[in-house]
Amino acid sequence: MTYVLSALADTRRDLSALFAPSSIAVVGASNDPAKYGNWLAVRALRDGHRRPAHLINKTRSTILGHPAAPSLSALGEPVDLAVIAVPAAGFDDAVDDAIAARVGAIVAITAGLGETGADGLARQNALVARLREAGIPMLGPNCLGVLDNTTGLDATVNEFRPGSVSVLSQSGNVAIDLAEHFTEQGLGVARFASLGNCADLDVADLIDSCVDHDGTSAIAVYCEGFKDGRKFARAAARAADAGKPVVLLSVGRGAASTRGAASHTGSLVTSGVVLEAVCEATGTELVSSPFEMANLLQALVRTRPPAGSRIAVLADGGGHASLASDSLEEAGLRVDEFTADLSSRVAAELPPTAGVSNPIDLAGGGEQDITSFERVARRLIESAETDAVLMTGYFGGYGEYDPAVAPREIQAGHDIGALVAASGASFVAQTMFADSRPAAALRESGVAVYRDVEHATWALSRLARRARTASHPLPALPIPAAPLAETGYWPARRALFAAGIPFVPAAEVTTVEELEAAVTDLRYPLVLKALGDEHKSDNGGVVLNIADHDTLISAWNDVQRRLAPPVCSIEEMADLTDSVELIIGVRRDPTFGPIALVGIGGVYTELLKDTRCALGPVSADQARDLLLSLRGSALLTGFRGKPPVDVDAAARLVATLSVFAAEHPEIGEIECNPIAVTPTTAVALDARIILAPRS
Amino acid sequence: MTYVLSALADTRRDLSALFAPSSIAVVGASNDPAKYGNWLAVRALRDGHRRPAHLINKTRSTILGHPAAPSLSALGEPVDLAVIAVPAAGFDDAVDDAIAARVGAIVAITAGLGETGADGLARQNALVARLREAGIPMLGPNCLGVLDNTTGLDATVNEFRPGSVSVLSQSGNVAIDLAEHFTEQGLGVARFASLGNCADLDVADLIDSCVDHDGTSAIAVYCEGFKDGRKFARAAARAADAGKPVVLLSVGRGAASTRGAASHTGSLVTSGVVLEAVCEATGTELVSSPFEMANLLQALVRTRPPAGSRIAVLADGGGHASLASDSLEEAGLRVDEFTADLSSRVAAELPPTAGVSNPIDLAGGGEQDITSFERVARRLIESAETDAVLMTGYFGGYGEYDPAVAPREIQAGHDIGALVAASGASFVAQTMFADSRPAAALRESGVAVYRDVEHATWALSRLARRARTASHPLPALPIPAAPLAETGYWPARRALFAAGIPFVPAAEVTTVEELEAAVTDLRYPLVLKALGDEHKSDNGGVVLNIADHDTLISAWNDVQRRLAPPVCSIEEMADLTDSVELIIGVRRDPTFGPIALVGIGGVYTELLKDTRCALGPVSADQARDLLLSLRGSALLTGFRGKPPVDVDAAARLVATLSVFAAEHPEIGEIECNPIAVTPTTAVALDARIILAPRS
Repeated sequence: MTYVLSALADTRRDLSALFAPSSIAVVGASNDPAKYGNWLAVRALRDGHRRPAHLINKTRSTILGHPAAPSLSALGEPVDLAVIAVPAAGFDDAVDDAIAARVGAIVAITAGLGETGADGLARQNALVARLREAGIPMLGPNCLGVLDNTTGLDATVNEFRPGSVSVLSQSGNVAIDLAEHFTEQGLGVARFASLGNCADLDVADLIDSCVDHDGTSAIAVYCEGFKDGRKFARAAARAADAGKPVVLLSVGRGAASTRGAASHTGSLVTSGVVLEAVCEATGTELVSSPFEMANLLQALVRTRPPAGSRIAVLADGGGHASLASDSLEEAGLRVDEFTADLSSRVAAELPPTAGVSNPIDLAGGGEQDITSFERVARRLIESAETDAVLMTGYFGGYGEYDPAVAPREIQAGHDIGALVAASGASFVAQTMFADSRPAAALRESGVAVYRDVEHATWALSRLARRARTASHPLPALPIPAAPLAETGYWPARRALFAAGIPFVPAAEVTTVEELEAAVTDLRYPLVLKALGDEHKSDNGGVVLNIADHDTLISAWNDVQRRLAPPVCSIEEMADLTDSVELIIGVRRDPTFGPIALVGIGGVYTELLKDTRCALGPVSADQARDLLLSLRGSALLTGFRGKPPVDVDAAARLVATLSVFAAEHPEIGEIECNPIAVTPTTAVALDARIILAPRS
Repeated sequence: MTYVLSALADTRRDLSALFAPSSIAVVGASNDPAKYGNWLAVRALRDGHRRPAHLINKTRSTILGHPAAPSLSALGEPVDLAVIAVPAAGFDDAVDDAIAARVGAIVAITAGLGETGADGLARQNALVARLREAGIPMLGPNCLGVLDNTTGLDATVNEFRPGSVSVLSQSGNVAIDLAEHFTEQGLGVARFASLGNCADLDVADLIDSCVDHDGTSAIAVYCEGFKDGRKFARAAARAADAGKPVVLLSVGRGAASTRGAASHTGSLVTSGVVLEAVCEATGTELVSSPFEMANLLQALVRTRPPAGSRIAVLADGGGHASLASDSLEEAGLRVDEFTADLSSRVAAELPPTAGVSNPIDLAGGGEQDITSFERVARRLIESAETDAVLMTGYFGGYGEYDPAVAPREIQAGHDIGALVAASGASFVAQTMFADSRPAAALRESGVAVYRDVEHATWALSRLARRARTASHPLPALPIPAAPLAETGYWPARRALFAAGIPFVPAAEVTTVEELEAAVTDLRYPLVLKALGDEHKSDNGGVVLNIADHDTLISAWNDVQRRLAPPVCSIEEMADLTDSVELIIGVRRDPTFGPIALVGIGGVYTELLKDTRCALGPVSADQARDLLLSLRGSALLTGFRGKPPVDVDAAARLVATLSVFAAEHPEIGEIECNPIAVTPTTAVALDARIILAPRS
């Protein structure tokens, strides 16, 4: 396999003029308080002490009491960032003016370009070509602006409290929604960029820039579509490698995305499945709402991922102890009993009524002495029995009933935070008083705090999954091979066989004479397949278990009479003793390229959808991980006394198929359904190729 | 089947003295502000204008500046409700005093009784016996008190804002947690009762009382364990029938609850599964956190359940429109395109930039005219194309940017609420400004409003499920039959055959002579089963497909040599052409009694857990619904060209087995695994009975 190196090439662009401009100009500055050009001008002038602010208006020489120039070129001094908020009719002129004035970057607020149809798109593309020639990056058009709290840049219309999360969003309202949750959870924004039409800068460029930005600890992306899926994947993987994880909120994940798919593989690989595969390959966290996004970001920013799944619950009430334990177990984590040794250490810190195994119930210990939380947490963290601690219940509410407790409770929050920081422990908290001052003290000290336990355990389970996910190199796409000339069953079978996929011995036959000749080289029992129909086995087009010559001829005649197929295949019947049938396939996503699929085969594929997908092409190691992560993987490893099947052979077959598909971008869907995996081999029993629709 | 009528009997008790007492006494009233007896006395005195409040203290004649009596009997006037908060040592005397004074009801705060072990439990039981003889109901002991906002009764220690939800809780902290969520969502509490040890009054008694309480619209129950599961089921079903649904938050749902189960059925029926079955049988809503509980209660109290699953999305932004659509589809609801007719009616209300099919995107229509929401909602509700409307996005935030809009936005909230009320439509709202005044206006007008769209769609999907769930009569338990004398394979088979379960022809054999005699009545092919081992098929103890006498004798000899089984079964081999194997079984839960299970059989039962359960015994109709609700039910109804199998015959078999199990309370687990269901019959191929552990 030859890799195209540019698929992994560094495409980073210098965006310092966008996020840290030395000067700013608002093109289309306005006195009308209902217009963007007004809001942006007000903010630019307000921040004039940070960087020179210029106002550009074609017709007025004064805007908001400040002098305005008719154009950037007429200003007589250089402008680093030009924010263009003129009507669509004047946009081309404004861009040309910006090019002439040699600005460092453009933010294009103007709407009515590429999003309006073919004409607008052609106009937008022409402008981008001129900008790229001039080396000027542009955000937008049709965007809401940009903000960088680390450089004091505010060229947008909403407020974002400072913090360490950079937000890249295709929707202003979704960004506001997210920012509201950030505020509740004590998070804030480092950079905000509204993506708009992504005519020049796309989300990958902006991620790349945030990875290199010291003030960014994590990157929140709301994106409805990607121009170049592999470029996004590369940038996201680079972010994960740099410890600045991307959390992706996307839409359109439903089954509607597979309308028109022709194979099982095609119908099983929805755009949601594609996104999951991309995210898994790149260390990106996929979420489905702004609330989930904020919940996960809080944990990613504050909490060390647990090294395993053993969680200690520290509750101050039996109800919350039980609710937390159930919630953790439902999230796939464990609440194991403590050893007698740890229980006795915990007991030494608490009154005799307390529950001192897992889950711990302080049972009044918190009311009696608010330092109980920190002391017990210390015992848990010191032990080797737990991978993370979940504190749950009432913390933050004690001071409400007894004002004398209030300052001690705040101090307890800081003390717990200091313990967590000093120990490097994985620790999250839930309290029904999540907006109390003690809860704020916990957050300020670096502890993630949630209002409801299911959101704390969900975030913890995502961190645990992140910690245990095996990392594979991001796959690169091979140089395309010569396109396939034919894609029927036999041409597909021959091409795959040549690529290294084993099939059972077989022959293509169209007449009874060809059949007679072919069977001299084949061993009974045989299978006769009438070709040319999709669900061959449903209408009797596949005759299994043909034991001898007479049965063969009678089956042939029957098939010819009923179906009159243009061509048939006569094949040795695989010995399926102790074998497992799998479906393996690849679907080419128009944005992200080949997505490999493995699943338990037979009718259960369709009914139970026990399948797993990965960004292709996949290695044999990765294919093995996929196979062993199937819900029914026990069937492969020796279920109920059966011998294990050759998973490595199956994995090699998956890897080979995925490389073949990657080398043939003309293939829309390809699958072997089924392959038979025995204790010693894996062999394909069928093959199917469907070309991608021409774009 | 003979029903025990008392299982459905009316056990309601008069609890008017508990919730609407004409007078109250605090026994153990105290001057010490760290004691319950102090807090309760303060509240009783505060509410003295509503009902006479008496303070009882053994040693002090003045408490909190008010006269105190040494006992209830010494008061000289009748007391309706006695709240006892004395130390455990004085509890018996206090109860005897209450009996002597002929109080109407007791709330027992005192801890240290039944929850401490066998001695405390014996003492508690003795007290309950005396109270029942005297006809005095008691809440607790070891409880936090009672409150009724509809009668102004406050005999507890926390605040609960008035409303229409009655809260019955075994945890004070969980009740407080819930009440905080109620406040955020504009809900409130009608009654609160802390369950404590449930020595006399249990949760079923309290549910019954709330069903008959005009001020209660729904009942929230947090319960860690039930004394009498069927009594709870009856009360919960009665609540659902009365339109006052019970929402149950419980704990201990995990797999740990099936430790020690011996059959597949046993290991598949966890306590979580049991609770789900009970809830489904009784119209109870099971939730897993206080937040879920509040979210669902808001919808149950405010929203008419949708008649179908077609949801119209009304968003004021493309991002929220897409997020809502994805979330609805993930919740199993539909976001179908509108007809051209409806789209044009919607378009007539909106600017040309708006998206006017489903999901609707006002795209600035809300900013331009806040009445857009109500006008578009009206078009949607008038159409026959939607079962519910989900409004989502930014509503409530417009006034924050333009103060002139603020009052109009509040009015818009009221107008939408009035439209929903007048039309009787199913309508829920989500807004990122859920605590704004326009959102409050929506809630005050009867619309459920959520902060995050996934919680709105979750609640809507629960309402939709509730609306479409087929209602079956609550099953009653039959009079027990004579206990089974033996439970081996052949005794089980004979007993089940006698009960009406068809098996394949077979014979019990222990010698080759018996075998020879038996086969004269049987048709080949045969199956030989060595009995006495759990997973017979795993170790070669089951020989299938024995075609003739010679093979039979050789199989017999082989089995005798390898396994030396005490007894064998020789059986006709069922013709499995076009058949589906199912597992059917019943597990007796110690609290709730028999729980019936059906599932797709074979190895997939264990791997994929495609099973469904129901509170037993089940009718054939109900069994049919269960079978058809399996994920793999397409296998039963004619999958990929196969003939459908006889689901009715399988359902009759399930019903018969469930009645048999219900008639035999000594059975812990019983199953037929598998039964073979063909296009024309259902027949059991195996039988297994495990007795319940003696309690």
